[in-house]
Amino acid sequence: MLSKNEIKDIQSLRHKKFREDTKLFVAEGPKIIGELLTLFPQQFKKVYGLKEWVEENNRLTSKVEYEIISETELERLSQLQTPNEVIAVLHHFESNEPALQKELVLYLDAIQDPGNFGSIIRIADWFGIKHLICSEGCADLYNIKVVQASMASIAKVNVFYDVGLQWLKKQNLPKYAATLDGESVYSTSRKDQGVLIIGNESKGVQRSIMEMIDQQITIPRFGEAESLNAAVATGIILSHLLKK
Amino acid sequence: MLSKNEIKDIQSLRHKKFREDTKLFVAEGPKIIGELLTLFPQQFKKVYGLKEWVEENNRLTSKVEYEIISETELERLSQLQTPNEVIAVLHHFESNEPALQKELVLYLDAIQDPGNFGSIIRIADWFGIKHLICSEGCADLYNIKVVQASMASIAKVNVFYDVGLQWLKKQNLPKYAATLDGESVYSTSRKDQGVLIIGNESKGVQRSIMEMIDQQITIPRFGEAESLNAAVATGIILSHLLKK
Repeated sequence: MLSKNEIKDIQSLRHKKFREDTKLFVAEGPKIIGELLTLFPQQFKKVYGLKEWVEENNRLTSKVEYEIISETELERLSQLQTPNEVIAVLHHFESNEPALQKELVLYLDAIQDPGNFGSIIRIADWFGIKHLICSEGCADLYNIKVVQASMASIAKVNVFYDVGLQWLKKQNLPKYAATLDGESVYSTSRKDQGVLIIGNESKGVQRSIMEMIDQQITIPRFGEAESLNAAVATGIILSHLLKK
Repeated sequence: MLSKNEIKDIQSLRHKKFREDTKLFVAEGPKIIGELLTLFPQQFKKVYGLKEWVEENNRLTSKVEYEIISETELERLSQLQTPNEVIAVLHHFESNEPALQKELVLYLDAIQDPGNFGSIIRIADWFGIKHLICSEGCADLYNIKVVQASMASIAKVNVFYDVGLQWLKKQNLPKYAATLDGESVYSTSRKDQGVLIIGNESKGVQRSIMEMIDQQITIPRFGEAESLNAAVATGIILSHLLKK
């Protein structure tokens, strides 16, 4: 049985302050935990699983510290509406300022919705983007909604955090921004290198960044919706820019 | 001041059963309510807004029944973590079995996540898709998360609901499915007509539908992520199939 203190420690990771102090975070559910255990067992501090999950996954849990918990304990630990078999506490990933090569990277300008942010990490991983640069206003990388939406991609993309404009300024690379009135994504050429900037969900790309932009890129609209979700727009633009 | 009964009636719309019995649903926040009031005032039963919102939007509220509420009342009515100025009760939209013309339509095969579902409605509206067909296993159209993610597009796309395989079978149109091992979306031709089928988030397109498919379409993966979010995949595929 879990001690009160251990439960409290895990619950405190719902707060950004505690995640930053401890350099820990929480992931939940068999899918993301299974994939992270397979690829990055060294990241795990401890896994808490229902008996059935632990028995089915003994090959994975052999590599890490784990404990069997009850349904009631899982409910107390979980941040999800529907707790799902297993929860784990992991160490933050190392994140380094990337020395950019001939490659395309993403720069997120204050992406605030954690679901969008996590989804963009997964999209970056799908398209082979290795570095994702986040401005100061972005959601917290270790927010449970970011983690869950990223699936295991959170471990595979280098997310470099809390950079300001000075980072962007010093990059001697072409800069592209996703906007509503730029060049059609259908007519832009393939981009092997550069920084693609995705703006805030409601405000778009901020003006001080727009002044540095070499090219604005737009997804043509054939219907009436006012905008596209930031993650969906990122996926569409990347699929066209990286077309082989 | 709102009566207890009125508060209870609005709260009961959190449950699908009550939404179906009353043919009502709830939308929240100035953005979606503003756009719906502009385009479809006749859909509104009543609007409940904070004093400031009502004063700023008197041009919009002149067309509908409304009431000024307090912050506390808004919190009691709202289903959002952060209640946002205004909440409204609306009548369900009419939904008809579409007589399909030369057009591309979407068929959702058990899309269960309400955020994905709403996002797909918004994507359909962006790309000018007029009809969205939903199988029995899809999330409820009037779930608050679907409504909020769709933005006002929920009013502009005809969402025809709860159809089974028999609907799909009788369509004398080419059928395309989004899968992980079909033809690259980069080499498929433009699709002016047909049914594009998007499968369930974890199970993909069900086998009995796969037997009817004329062409499988795939988004090439250049990185490592296991899959893409269903809404992101829908956006990417539509952007390529409808390329002008």
